[in-house]
Amino acid sequence: MCIFCDIVEGKIPVQKIFENDLVLVFLDHRPINTGHALVIPKTHYANLEEVSEEALIAVALAIKKIGGLLKTKLAVPGYNVCENNDGIAGQEVPHLHFHVIPRQENDGISHQWPHREYNPGEAEEIIKKLLT
Amino acid sequence: MCIFCDIVEGKIPVQKIFENDLVLVFLDHRPINTGHALVIPKTHYANLEEVSEEALIAVALAIKKIGGLLKTKLAVPGYNVCENNDGIAGQEVPHLHFHVIPRQENDGISHQWPHREYNPGEAEEIIKKLLT
Repeated sequence: MCIFCDIVEGKIPVQKIFENDLVLVFLDHRPINTGHALVIPKTHYANLEEVSEEALIAVALAIKKIGGLLKTKLAVPGYNVCENNDGIAGQEVPHLHFHVIPRQENDGISHQWPHREYNPGEAEEIIKKLLT
Repeated sequence: MCIFCDIVEGKIPVQKIFENDLVLVFLDHRPINTGHALVIPKTHYANLEEVSEEALIAVALAIKKIGGLLKTKLAVPGYNVCENNDGIAGQEVPHLHFHVIPRQENDGISHQWPHREYNPGEAEEIIKKLLT
């Protein structure tokens, strides 16, 4: 049972924006801001590690398309694209999905995340681990 | 003058993770969390509206690749993928870039954004505008 698979199969109605063989784009029914869209592959993949390259490419192109639509049709001046990959990152539905969240002047949405600096040698150590 | 173009051209040193003809992936020097990576197209595009489909596809595949590397090499259990599209959305460098932000248990990073519900008929009205 996956709510997004049910949406793809038409078992749960949504406000569809567009779709093709590989992806579906629809309005999040609990928007962070007006026009908040979700972009999902039609096939069930839990996350970016599971998704096929073909489906991921279709998702990326759909994100670009809905972003343009939000700007031209809803006069949205900018937006955030967010994907929470796994529960620890805040992913609530384990079917890969990207949020496209319109932003407006003074919309009261803040996402200031804390930054820090690496200690000397720390970044080099990370690169070493990543490339080993 | 674009700091990310300077990085691509090697004028500003960074901790590179990998690159190909189209994209560069490197450590953000002011990480939100350890291993925080930036994925950028090598060509200058301000945002998702400007980026070519070819470059966007390369960026999407690179996000998938660095996500997998973070999981396997740095034992990262999950991560957030974020793109701030335009200044109003928090984009600080006007050269398209995706953040890949590792998450850990109790990392103290919160990104609870406020949700609301649409009023009756409001979502239908948005769809009408988007599809006109």
